[in-house]
Amino acid sequence: MGLRDFTIYDAIVRNARLFGNREAWVFDRRRVTFQQFLAEINRLTYGLKKLGLSKGDRLGVLSQNCYEFVLLYGAAAQLGAVMLPINWRLNPKEIEYILSDGSPRFFFVGPEYQTMAKDISKKMNYIELLITMGEKESGFTPFSSLLEEKGAVQEVDILQTDAYLIIHTAAVAGKPRGATLSQANIIASNIQHIATVGIREEDSYLHLLPLFHIADLALAFSIMHAGGKNVIMSKFDPELALQLIEKERITTIGEFPPMLGMLLEKLEGKNYDISSLKHVAGIDHPANIEKLKQKTKAEFWIGFGQSETSGMVTVCPYTEKPGSAGKEGPLVKIKLVDEHDREVEVGKPGEICVRSPLVFLGYWNLEEDNRYTFRDGWHHTGDIGRLDEHGYLWYVKRKAEKELIKPGGENVYPAEVEKVILENPEVAEVSVIGVRDPEWGEAIKAVCVLKGGSSLTKQELIDFVATRIARFKKPKYVEFVPALPKSQDGSIDRDKVKAEQGKA
Amino acid sequence: MGLRDFTIYDAIVRNARLFGNREAWVFDRRRVTFQQFLAEINRLTYGLKKLGLSKGDRLGVLSQNCYEFVLLYGAAAQLGAVMLPINWRLNPKEIEYILSDGSPRFFFVGPEYQTMAKDISKKMNYIELLITMGEKESGFTPFSSLLEEKGAVQEVDILQTDAYLIIHTAAVAGKPRGATLSQANIIASNIQHIATVGIREEDSYLHLLPLFHIADLALAFSIMHAGGKNVIMSKFDPELALQLIEKERITTIGEFPPMLGMLLEKLEGKNYDISSLKHVAGIDHPANIEKLKQKTKAEFWIGFGQSETSGMVTVCPYTEKPGSAGKEGPLVKIKLVDEHDREVEVGKPGEICVRSPLVFLGYWNLEEDNRYTFRDGWHHTGDIGRLDEHGYLWYVKRKAEKELIKPGGENVYPAEVEKVILENPEVAEVSVIGVRDPEWGEAIKAVCVLKGGSSLTKQELIDFVATRIARFKKPKYVEFVPALPKSQDGSIDRDKVKAEQGKA
Repeated sequence: MGLRDFTIYDAIVRNARLFGNREAWVFDRRRVTFQQFLAEINRLTYGLKKLGLSKGDRLGVLSQNCYEFVLLYGAAAQLGAVMLPINWRLNPKEIEYILSDGSPRFFFVGPEYQTMAKDISKKMNYIELLITMGEKESGFTPFSSLLEEKGAVQEVDILQTDAYLIIHTAAVAGKPRGATLSQANIIASNIQHIATVGIREEDSYLHLLPLFHIADLALAFSIMHAGGKNVIMSKFDPELALQLIEKERITTIGEFPPMLGMLLEKLEGKNYDISSLKHVAGIDHPANIEKLKQKTKAEFWIGFGQSETSGMVTVCPYTEKPGSAGKEGPLVKIKLVDEHDREVEVGKPGEICVRSPLVFLGYWNLEEDNRYTFRDGWHHTGDIGRLDEHGYLWYVKRKAEKELIKPGGENVYPAEVEKVILENPEVAEVSVIGVRDPEWGEAIKAVCVLKGGSSLTKQELIDFVATRIARFKKPKYVEFVPALPKSQDGSIDRDKVKAEQGKA
Repeated sequence: MGLRDFTIYDAIVRNARLFGNREAWVFDRRRVTFQQFLAEINRLTYGLKKLGLSKGDRLGVLSQNCYEFVLLYGAAAQLGAVMLPINWRLNPKEIEYILSDGSPRFFFVGPEYQTMAKDISKKMNYIELLITMGEKESGFTPFSSLLEEKGAVQEVDILQTDAYLIIHTAAVAGKPRGATLSQANIIASNIQHIATVGIREEDSYLHLLPLFHIADLALAFSIMHAGGKNVIMSKFDPELALQLIEKERITTIGEFPPMLGMLLEKLEGKNYDISSLKHVAGIDHPANIEKLKQKTKAEFWIGFGQSETSGMVTVCPYTEKPGSAGKEGPLVKIKLVDEHDREVEVGKPGEICVRSPLVFLGYWNLEEDNRYTFRDGWHHTGDIGRLDEHGYLWYVKRKAEKELIKPGGENVYPAEVEKVILENPEVAEVSVIGVRDPEWGEAIKAVCVLKGGSSLTKQELIDFVATRIARFKKPKYVEFVPALPKSQDGSIDRDKVKAEQGKA
């Protein structure tokens, strides 16, 4: 441990000392103080070490939100192990790819995914142990058995800049890439968030979002770091969310469409008291944000961020600059560049580049991608924005090479959806684009040319995709057209497709 | 510049973009916006570079607070030069020592100290250039001439962990040691302070303290970093301070005794409006803190810190735990150890050890001291404290090896004063101790055994010291005794002297 290091485990130890008997985590009927949290992490670390886990080993996690998930984040921080949380909305083939990329020694699985996990892990000889987050299933070691021993504090020689967390995100080549973050990244993200938003010990956070997503992690860890209370939901449920906001006097949530809309809808005619809300971070429609303002005194925080930047790097209250993506956080330097890495003028669009302690370590085992992404000493986000004369960032679009669609905050790579659609023998050509969507923020639209004589229906095509990749990647809209616009080189001109078909 | 670096110059560039036309610095009749501040730093950097200054070169500064002083801090951050600010209350011999230790190439001198500076620098061939902060004097280059050229932004390949600032502090061996800080240290201090105290863009800071002192720098840079306004006073003047607090709607000050007492005294019967004050950081008597609470809604922040930790590492509002030194900041790990570096139990006194991004790089050119200070991977502060069961730090005393007296926040090493007193031929033995003082917090007391037949008076002894070292190091109290208590080894037993003579 370096003299100037400060890790997530250090924050947990500090908080156990300072906020010992206050509640740190609430899940279902369980209420855990900061002191208990530390004690259980120490036991878990001891249990994992006894099973042979060492610094740098990966821990695969496929689970809905639960308290055990959070304990794993804590133990990994202490041990120097690397968390590999997996999006449970992916399908088995996608999950298999992430496992093969991260090659975890232990694989922690929630009750919903155990049959799938058993099948997948049979093919993977590096997975030594399957551990169930819930009830004991055959072939699974129960999580609770790892906590049986009292153990002792484990001193491991780790650095805050060691790898700590791999989050797989959509990729240029159609395969997800593992954005690798260090504990220093998360600590910088925490402290910047606490400073910018003004988080205090009295704050509390309700997990509407999943623990495998950077947006949830960044908010959860910030609140934990500041000495606040985290309330876990296994997954988003608007009715339960309203109940918990009222009961636990929640001050902070993070959301992607359609969450806020659903909360506000459920609220109509009901008597939930959500006046405790102070900070809502997310992306949403002005109408929802306005409605939130009418119902509460909460500030709606907008911004720009990605897994690769440990969460938000630009942020501001919605009211400060509606429609923008906020301004540089106090630990963030933004530069917009053209395709030759020359800085563009104020007001002109350019690729958003970031220098900051929040910038990730790189993509897992993709040295070439890292050299490209980090060229010229800046992290190239693959997103295009512009800066106005007051320094606010305005989001423009993704770079063509990193075209992404974000339904409900998920990353969907059009090329991946197009590849699946082209597997249908009745489709001749396709272009998959993102369109604005009132419910999900953005939705997937497939613009297709069918082969002569085809009678394929839109719904059949949607179902075709749904059985082959994660359901959230299936098109919400399908349009059959006689031909697709082409560029001079004969390839499909995505910008023209968008111009012609960019409405839902 | 590293991908994950964020320097003080980066913060200045960010703020010029985000807060361009807002006031950053106010000094006398000058009001400087964030944009102007950046532009002038760029010109100064250009000017310094043209004169041959390179990364790593030291800039000596002997000056009362002024705007030029702050520009130098900014240009040094851009250039990777190392600031060597010198306490102007020191006497020529002490200043000479610090210069010889830091060996600056350029020496910036305020109008009050130019005769002295010219004499000293004649002996020092590494000083290439004397620059006056004020009017042009013979032999001095005017500061303004460095700003003549328009220049251009200077890209220098620096790291946030490079040396940036040397602050000389009292030392074990009786010679001041140069605590060397990096830009990363200051940035960590800033963001922790912003997060802990809750500094916002609307805040403003009045410099009661000198710019060579870490307490002033840490507050000033935090406010600057957060986008707030800094108002400079050349040196502390209670009447002017009250005028400025009222006029500039100051929210933040830092102070050491007797400043707050003098402010409150001046306030009696006068009509200054100081209701804008929100945050007062310092050390003071409960009576003054209570009085402040009656007059304003300001929070009084108490804590523990030193130059070596880039300012406060423990902090809390006075009302949260009166009499304590606060609790660990969110980027700080504290451990109390016995003389064998074993952690002591809760409630027991031990040496305060720190691990944190705020821990300094080490003492300038004192590798052996650094190995000792940083042994076992912790910074050993040389101060003794205890932690209570809620994690609050309570200050106990300095370690014997680092016995310090702190009149008005200055560091005075008793051995240094004792050495001077023993130069008086009429003194046989002496022990210098710190005693509580209503005005200065702590005052210096010399307990002396005179040689037979001596008729030396207390005042004569005080004057004797005052002519030889900085005036703030002269004893306020002198006591003549027939004999001093001794330890078994025959040395003077300082603890017994304190027990017998520890009152003013």
